[in-house]
Amino acid sequence: MSEIRTDPEGTQDELVPGHGLVAEIAEAVDADDAQRVNALLEPVHGADIADLIEQLTPQRRARFVRLYSGEFDAEILAEIDESIREQVIEQLPAEVLAEAVRDMDSDDVVDLVEDLEGPEREVVLAALDESDRIAVEQSLNYPEHSAGRLMQSEVVTAPEHWTVGETIDFLRAEDWLPDQFYHVVLVDPKRHPVGHVTLGRLLSSQRETKLADITEDSFRTIGVLEDEGDVAYVFNQYHIISTPVVDADGRLVGVITIDDAMNVLDEEHEEDVLRLAGVGEDSHVSDTAMQTARQRLPWLVANLFTASLSAMVISLFENTIAALVTLAALMPIVASTGGIAGTQSLAVAVRGLATRDLNKGNARRVVVRELFAGLLNGLGLAALLFAGGFVLFGDPLLGMVLAGAMMMNQIVAALAGVLIPLLLRRLGLDPALASGTFVTTLTDVMGFFVFLGLATWVLL
Amino acid sequence: MSEIRTDPEGTQDELVPGHGLVAEIAEAVDADDAQRVNALLEPVHGADIADLIEQLTPQRRARFVRLYSGEFDAEILAEIDESIREQVIEQLPAEVLAEAVRDMDSDDVVDLVEDLEGPEREVVLAALDESDRIAVEQSLNYPEHSAGRLMQSEVVTAPEHWTVGETIDFLRAEDWLPDQFYHVVLVDPKRHPVGHVTLGRLLSSQRETKLADITEDSFRTIGVLEDEGDVAYVFNQYHIISTPVVDADGRLVGVITIDDAMNVLDEEHEEDVLRLAGVGEDSHVSDTAMQTARQRLPWLVANLFTASLSAMVISLFENTIAALVTLAALMPIVASTGGIAGTQSLAVAVRGLATRDLNKGNARRVVVRELFAGLLNGLGLAALLFAGGFVLFGDPLLGMVLAGAMMMNQIVAALAGVLIPLLLRRLGLDPALASGTFVTTLTDVMGFFVFLGLATWVLL
Repeated sequence: MSEIRTDPEGTQDELVPGHGLVAEIAEAVDADDAQRVNALLEPVHGADIADLIEQLTPQRRARFVRLYSGEFDAEILAEIDESIREQVIEQLPAEVLAEAVRDMDSDDVVDLVEDLEGPEREVVLAALDESDRIAVEQSLNYPEHSAGRLMQSEVVTAPEHWTVGETIDFLRAEDWLPDQFYHVVLVDPKRHPVGHVTLGRLLSSQRETKLADITEDSFRTIGVLEDEGDVAYVFNQYHIISTPVVDADGRLVGVITIDDAMNVLDEEHEEDVLRLAGVGEDSHVSDTAMQTARQRLPWLVANLFTASLSAMVISLFENTIAALVTLAALMPIVASTGGIAGTQSLAVAVRGLATRDLNKGNARRVVVRELFAGLLNGLGLAALLFAGGFVLFGDPLLGMVLAGAMMMNQIVAALAGVLIPLLLRRLGLDPALASGTFVTTLTDVMGFFVFLGLATWVLL
Repeated sequence: MSEIRTDPEGTQDELVPGHGLVAEIAEAVDADDAQRVNALLEPVHGADIADLIEQLTPQRRARFVRLYSGEFDAEILAEIDESIREQVIEQLPAEVLAEAVRDMDSDDVVDLVEDLEGPEREVVLAALDESDRIAVEQSLNYPEHSAGRLMQSEVVTAPEHWTVGETIDFLRAEDWLPDQFYHVVLVDPKRHPVGHVTLGRLLSSQRETKLADITEDSFRTIGVLEDEGDVAYVFNQYHIISTPVVDADGRLVGVITIDDAMNVLDEEHEEDVLRLAGVGEDSHVSDTAMQTARQRLPWLVANLFTASLSAMVISLFENTIAALVTLAALMPIVASTGGIAGTQSLAVAVRGLATRDLNKGNARRVVVRELFAGLLNGLGLAALLFAGGFVLFGDPLLGMVLAGAMMMNQIVAALAGVLIPLLLRRLGLDPALASGTFVTTLTDVMGFFVFLGLATWVLL
């Protein structure tokens, strides 16, 4: 029994036993000491071993896999991050790989195989029993990120007319049952799911009770082509623990469990955070500096061009700046505060779209709210700036220019932050693609233009 | 059986039946038409009704609750967002509230009560049976955001010497069982949990099998004071479906299930996204413009001051700018591209800390990687800028100034993005508090300083 320890330093590293071990493992790998590697990892959970492998340098990783290959099991393999999966599998002896794969649930095999190329894919598929292989190949026929890829094909079903006693006798006789299952799905003769019974209900009911009398009130099925993000949303929204997946004819083809939905939710979040910041969602802690640089360069180059827009706008006002150089020092204030306001509005909108809290039903209200919120904050900031400009420069006109530009840019920022993601969603794109770059370009350009434009008009 | 429909338009609104209804409900509320409200909501899930209530304007919300109060049940109440919980509860007749509360699991009651003030809290607690009330009051004694607040006190236990048959007979005789449970927890005579058995294993084993022979290999308990974020991490990392909670003496006090952990994971995500963008995590789609403005103003004002730092730095170089006004137009390029690079590095670091992929074991490696990634991208962008500066202005020196400043600022940005969150973590603070404002202030100030400083040195 392992217990989660408290973490007085607030670092939380201790929570995950594997993490403190990276240095020790690295040492043992460098010394080619297989025995020590095994001893160190003996008490460690497969999921943590997978994380640990990810944190080794690529050279050490290859040596580690060779040293440790005898202990490589289904659990570790299922948890290995896709970014290093290929490297790990190449190093594993075929029989170890085959053994591990045979112990995996079909959804984990699908997750593993979908990223593999020709020969490795063949090795994995060949290791499976025929029925498992067919199930995996069927799953692979569904589009990526669909419910079909997420489900496992092992489902515990019962005819709708069975009693509790018949079901228990059936379960006791079967030896193929999945490791974890939470419902018995009732199916009609054509394998259409018609309801499900929780195992708790089954256990606490008398043997003669009919299954049909103890099904759950809230029962829903998921179409095999549904997007995995929608599936995760449904699990989270309705506190679902497992639910059947059906094909276009409504026939049962698998079941999705909440732990997989939770993983998807976590991955979708990662996408949102990284996309909003203009980083490819394929970035991993194990990436090298070169990979990291390459992922980020596109947005940086894009920004170079959009920043040139700002430069062009400013260059329109070179005469104004030459006449009053203080303007050059003050102009970033309006632009950068606009950037912050745009980022705030953007984050709230993207998050709202992800949780469906922002939708067609209230989009108009939220846009109007952002408009007024921008106006209110614009007024507040403008008052501060006016006072500041007046006190520091003794010039009420300069204060007015600052205040006016700030107010307009705050409104633009608040609106852009919500309208851009709504527009992207309308176009069928991921709203999180509206990374900061778009919004801050707009607020920069507007900020410089309005400020310098007003200054030219009022001050010169 | 409700089925999730596909969403050919990619808008996903249809997924949630409640959302399209907001306008219709609003109309029925305005017409005081209780019958129509009931008819519209009859097929809608409680969780969606709760979302819908959140999306009404405050005035309509109060009227809605009065119109619909007869139908208000535990499910709706448990899902109502905390931002509007108080308003809704104030409008509910005491007997409706009491009835709903009696149907809730103890963890949902705790979640409801912890945000309520004196009189409403009393009404809710008074509605409970004595044993339930004691359990809820006990939970409330644990700190906010602890496992103790998250757990439900209803746990299905069995003495460690029982057989499958004895356990099933016990379950059939009890009528207090929780709605959903996934394990039977084995306890010793002092109520220390010593293992657990999945219901699937229980159902598929023979009656005479000893529970002790079919416990799960991977069994862990959670301390009642653990932080809920750590609990969510553990559920996600180890694919746990439910796990016992123990007090300081190792005695069983409750159980946490994965659906609650998934909710916590989702909320922690929300916090990360909003904090990174400098928005208080208490922002909701139901907030008014005034509330929205007030939440965001503090970061905006903070930014006003940090942006003044940039202004001060620039004003140091007013003579340089007066001599070469083009510099004023070019200076935002270096600053803004630095801001993007800092945001990228920041997002990756904050996400890595949240998933524990970035930890003590590899922090040094990741910092070095960021340094080199910054250097590489700095070189690439510098080459582009040098070429651009040379072509546009025919001045190799100006190109060199742009390139040099860009390179230095890219390195500063990449390092700041990872070091600031690591430092915050070391100080025991949330790394996501390193919102864009800190990082972009630094990259702005550095960008202007390095660019104008180099220009003064090289060009004048």
